[in-house]
Amino acid sequence: RHFHFCKLPGRVMGIRLLRFTSVVIIVLLLVAGALTALLPTIKDDKMPNLRREPKAQSQSALDSFTLIMQTYNRTDLLLKLLNHYQAIPHLHKVIVVWNNVGEKIPEEMWNSLGPHPVPVVFKVQTVNRMRNRLQNFPELETKAVLMMDDDTLVSAHDLAFAFSVWQQFPEHIVGFVPRKHISTPSGVYSYGSFELQNPGFGNGDQYSMVLIGAAFFHSGYLEDFQRQPEAVYALIDETQNCDDIAMNFLVAKHTGKPSGVFVKPVDIRNLEKDTNSGYSGMWHRAEHLLQRSYCVNKLVNIYDGMPLKYSNIMISQFGFPNYANHKNKM
Amino acid sequence: RHFHFCKLPGRVMGIRLLRFTSVVIIVLLLVAGALTALLPTIKDDKMPNLRREPKAQSQSALDSFTLIMQTYNRTDLLLKLLNHYQAIPHLHKVIVVWNNVGEKIPEEMWNSLGPHPVPVVFKVQTVNRMRNRLQNFPELETKAVLMMDDDTLVSAHDLAFAFSVWQQFPEHIVGFVPRKHISTPSGVYSYGSFELQNPGFGNGDQYSMVLIGAAFFHSGYLEDFQRQPEAVYALIDETQNCDDIAMNFLVAKHTGKPSGVFVKPVDIRNLEKDTNSGYSGMWHRAEHLLQRSYCVNKLVNIYDGMPLKYSNIMISQFGFPNYANHKNKM
Repeated sequence: RHFHFCKLPGRVMGIRLLRFTSVVIIVLLLVAGALTALLPTIKDDKMPNLRREPKAQSQSALDSFTLIMQTYNRTDLLLKLLNHYQAIPHLHKVIVVWNNVGEKIPEEMWNSLGPHPVPVVFKVQTVNRMRNRLQNFPELETKAVLMMDDDTLVSAHDLAFAFSVWQQFPEHIVGFVPRKHISTPSGVYSYGSFELQNPGFGNGDQYSMVLIGAAFFHSGYLEDFQRQPEAVYALIDETQNCDDIAMNFLVAKHTGKPSGVFVKPVDIRNLEKDTNSGYSGMWHRAEHLLQRSYCVNKLVNIYDGMPLKYSNIMISQFGFPNYANHKNKM
Repeated sequence: RHFHFCKLPGRVMGIRLLRFTSVVIIVLLLVAGALTALLPTIKDDKMPNLRREPKAQSQSALDSFTLIMQTYNRTDLLLKLLNHYQAIPHLHKVIVVWNNVGEKIPEEMWNSLGPHPVPVVFKVQTVNRMRNRLQNFPELETKAVLMMDDDTLVSAHDLAFAFSVWQQFPEHIVGFVPRKHISTPSGVYSYGSFELQNPGFGNGDQYSMVLIGAAFFHSGYLEDFQRQPEAVYALIDETQNCDDIAMNFLVAKHTGKPSGVFVKPVDIRNLEKDTNSGYSGMWHRAEHLLQRSYCVNKLVNIYDGMPLKYSNIMISQFGFPNYANHKNKM
């Protein structure tokens, strides 16, 4: 009994100490684990909040972009533009969003005219919706998306330069078409371009949006777009318009900065007049601009605030087309 | 003895356990401490490596800049320019680096023509040195420095815009005069401007330096400049040139990116011809450009490598002077 009694305190003390230290060690490990989780993520991907599923990170996926072009009733323009865009430097793949519901994709003709520089995927849509182009396509392998309207021709030089600019501003929409909103004393917002009054921050003009119909942006934003309030989809479907305004709201909310970076194009053309289909784009509808002002105000309601911010930064390519564009008396 | 004997194992076991757990706890605390140190620093100050002594951080010190203007033998130009620059928006103070050794500063005249919008400090120099303007002046209270040559007139609009650009790129030299280096097959570098061959990265031109004689940069770089190899000071003193090239090397090394951001000036003028002194600037010396190529190669030796990087980003102000500068067919 002595023996038993004598071991007991040691063992009890040992056990208590053991328990205590185990708890302390576990607590410290949890703290260490939490701190590790707070360490900055690897800087390669500058967008830690976008929960993009990991895909095979080939070298090309980082240094190239995917062209997403939605098309409706302008197949002649589409094919003309594809001949141009399929050869742009750093292009990884083309995704054609086929809004011609019920009409066969020109896959046979496309293949018969191969080989082609890059893969071109035709995504058949079941409903003709403006926001079809904002799906998170599984074929998308690159971090960068170039989105183009199917009637817009931008030169290869402009695109190569704008892509290099996007690589320096990957969280922004880097593109060729700036727009702005202004607020009025009544609190109602208006949408427009240069014709609208300047927002009044110093001299010159400001822009608060860059339209996605001719722009580069991070593919993670397509993933983000799938997680927006239902009211946003309803608005875009109701107007068949404003998906680009919605994207600018999304990006501005995400970054807390101006959503876009405007790159002044040297050569950008609208080929609308050249189509045989006789179809003219949505922006010819009488109510188009009013609709977009309407969208701005609806989105402010949906997002409970105005996240768009102004910028007056205009980027051009140094010494292109020629060095005269930067020569001065110095 | 039973008792003594029975306590001993318990106490020994307890002590061993205690020691062991103490060691474990200390190790875990050290690990936790190390992890905490790796947490990202507060993002307000984007330059965590510059050991700038904390000064009173008034609101104006963050939203304004200090003009540093060195002057030699052109007091008439200096005074003409001071009338202009003293009224630039967001200017906090002017520091005139008086290289007219032995000559009285025009303080009496300056005061008699007061009041002035901002304080102007005349720093009398004992030796006429080019690098006098790169001292870490105690009068400097702002994060931003605007450095101007004493014969250069830049419009208030350009300066206000460039300052706003600097605030978005605070680790860069944001200014109006781009230059570049090129490498040759022999490994020898050359210095120049648009007349030199393009470095060959795609089309258009590139720049790898922005001259500090008309530029904004972070005041922390003046502090950094005091800690450069002696050979750098010797080079600048030997040539009475190249302090700006040295600053570009310093900034490029610090950031690992292009040192400068070029803002295309709307109105920049060289007033050299207007001086009564008959003194024409250093850049008129026959050997000026050759000297600068010489400096590039010497600095590469001193820093054991070429840190300068190319950029082709040219920034202009959106819609200024008028909105025609961004209108296009879209």
